[in-house]
Amino acid sequence: MSAELDFIAALRALADNPAARGLQDDCAVLPFGGELLVLTHDTMVAGIHYLPDQDPADVAWKLVASNISDLAAKGAQPVGVLLSYQLTGGEARFLEGLREALAHYGAPLLGGDTVKAAEGQTLGLTALGRATHRPVPARNGAKAGDSLYLSGPVGGAMIGFEALQAGSSDVAITLPYRRPQARLAEGIALAPYVSAMMDVSDGVLLDACRMAQASGVTLALDSRAVPIAAPEARRDDALRWGDDYQLLFTAPQGALLPCPAIRIGSVLPRADQPLLLDGKAPEGSLGYTH
Amino acid sequence: MSAELDFIAALRALADNPAARGLQDDCAVLPFGGELLVLTHDTMVAGIHYLPDQDPADVAWKLVASNISDLAAKGAQPVGVLLSYQLTGGEARFLEGLREALAHYGAPLLGGDTVKAAEGQTLGLTALGRATHRPVPARNGAKAGDSLYLSGPVGGAMIGFEALQAGSSDVAITLPYRRPQARLAEGIALAPYVSAMMDVSDGVLLDACRMAQASGVTLALDSRAVPIAAPEARRDDALRWGDDYQLLFTAPQGALLPCPAIRIGSVLPRADQPLLLDGKAPEGSLGYTH
Repeated sequence: MSAELDFIAALRALADNPAARGLQDDCAVLPFGGELLVLTHDTMVAGIHYLPDQDPADVAWKLVASNISDLAAKGAQPVGVLLSYQLTGGEARFLEGLREALAHYGAPLLGGDTVKAAEGQTLGLTALGRATHRPVPARNGAKAGDSLYLSGPVGGAMIGFEALQAGSSDVAITLPYRRPQARLAEGIALAPYVSAMMDVSDGVLLDACRMAQASGVTLALDSRAVPIAAPEARRDDALRWGDDYQLLFTAPQGALLPCPAIRIGSVLPRADQPLLLDGKAPEGSLGYTH
Repeated sequence: MSAELDFIAALRALADNPAARGLQDDCAVLPFGGELLVLTHDTMVAGIHYLPDQDPADVAWKLVASNISDLAAKGAQPVGVLLSYQLTGGEARFLEGLREALAHYGAPLLGGDTVKAAEGQTLGLTALGRATHRPVPARNGAKAGDSLYLSGPVGGAMIGFEALQAGSSDVAITLPYRRPQARLAEGIALAPYVSAMMDVSDGVLLDACRMAQASGVTLALDSRAVPIAAPEARRDDALRWGDDYQLLFTAPQGALLPCPAIRIGSVLPRADQPLLLDGKAPEGSLGYTH
């Protein structure tokens, strides 16, 4: 983990340009012509980011959704994607899922590369979008006094993953994990209203902590306020599980929002801790790091 | 190979937009903000596209150069790159090569993703450029009566690869393989003059054949005219080896070109064969497919 963080820090230092703020989950924002181009790339590895025996159609969907979710958090309209695909045999199903996901999000396939696999499978997708609002929402804009919101429930992907791992054939219960929904319409609608926004891809607590640190504030979450799509007994886990792709955002108190969202906390001036959960520093791991 | 071709054909069909012409080596060209955005993504796999024990600094250089070469063939000025990196331990050297290559080509690092490796290593780079000339050169524009040119010698990478595999520590002889040069300045200078252009990444014969097929013409090559950076006895091999990143292009006969280039043949109306080498269909494999 430390070698990984060192490497990312070195890459960030190498990227001495304002567009390169996010080398992992975030997007680059680049003036191009008279518009702002929003760019993101997510890589997924078999056995790390998806189950090796998972339906390739679901893997394709997730690859697209995870990138579109990054665009959504920037309020960016998808322009297209470039695919990096490593051939391993599941191509027909992969194509089906890819076709469905690209049609769903209105993102044309622009190009990419296909390569043979030496071992395992690694997939990549670069997604391009067009900013619909300036300034483009970022994770560093939360201000003390703002309220903290979530666009919808978390934990559904966790329940779906566990069901899938247990061999469940209940397509409804596994759906939130297999076919996560990027909140694209919500992100575009919210962009003019938010002070900070990001997608929850690694867990509400971990991503809230990242937002707090980027913004130089403390985020105070009310754990009971967080909507969960899981049994109440799993609330702690649901707060630490990613893959639901809800949007986490801050907006001035009392702001009239253009779409449903749940207030889950408030933004405080920076205290000792970047994150407070029910008034205390959260215990244990905050979420999923990969 | 057939499954790969089927998949690529299906991807092309899925990409029912004019920007998606090239799903493998070519670039997408997309109007954005009043300008033309040029996009390419190359994926490299350890054991297929580079030697597993190769210096990661050289691997990083090649990853950048291969993508910049795609931009060069479009006469595009680099705008930046997104890196997909799989952690395997050679990070410090990789960073050195990455830094050198990006500085060399004036391409800032904009973002990307770093992931753990389950097995092996797969690397990807998305490069973005700004078209400097319209129409953007493509491989499909060669016209009967044009001349066929190469920007410089081929075969140096082959000799370098063989020396490296044999354990040579002669840095000069291995350099053309380890640090291939994308012909960026040449590509930008040539863009207004060419009728068709592409980079030679899989061998002069194979790439010339692709250009002929895309353009609906026959390319007649004079094998002795092709400049090689290899012993004369290896001429046949040098014509079939990629990785030198020279530019292959056509221009009207007698065109005054803005940079040195070698005339290696001519463009004929489409005959039975897309490619003639010294008046005959070339024998054996045309080049490197991966």
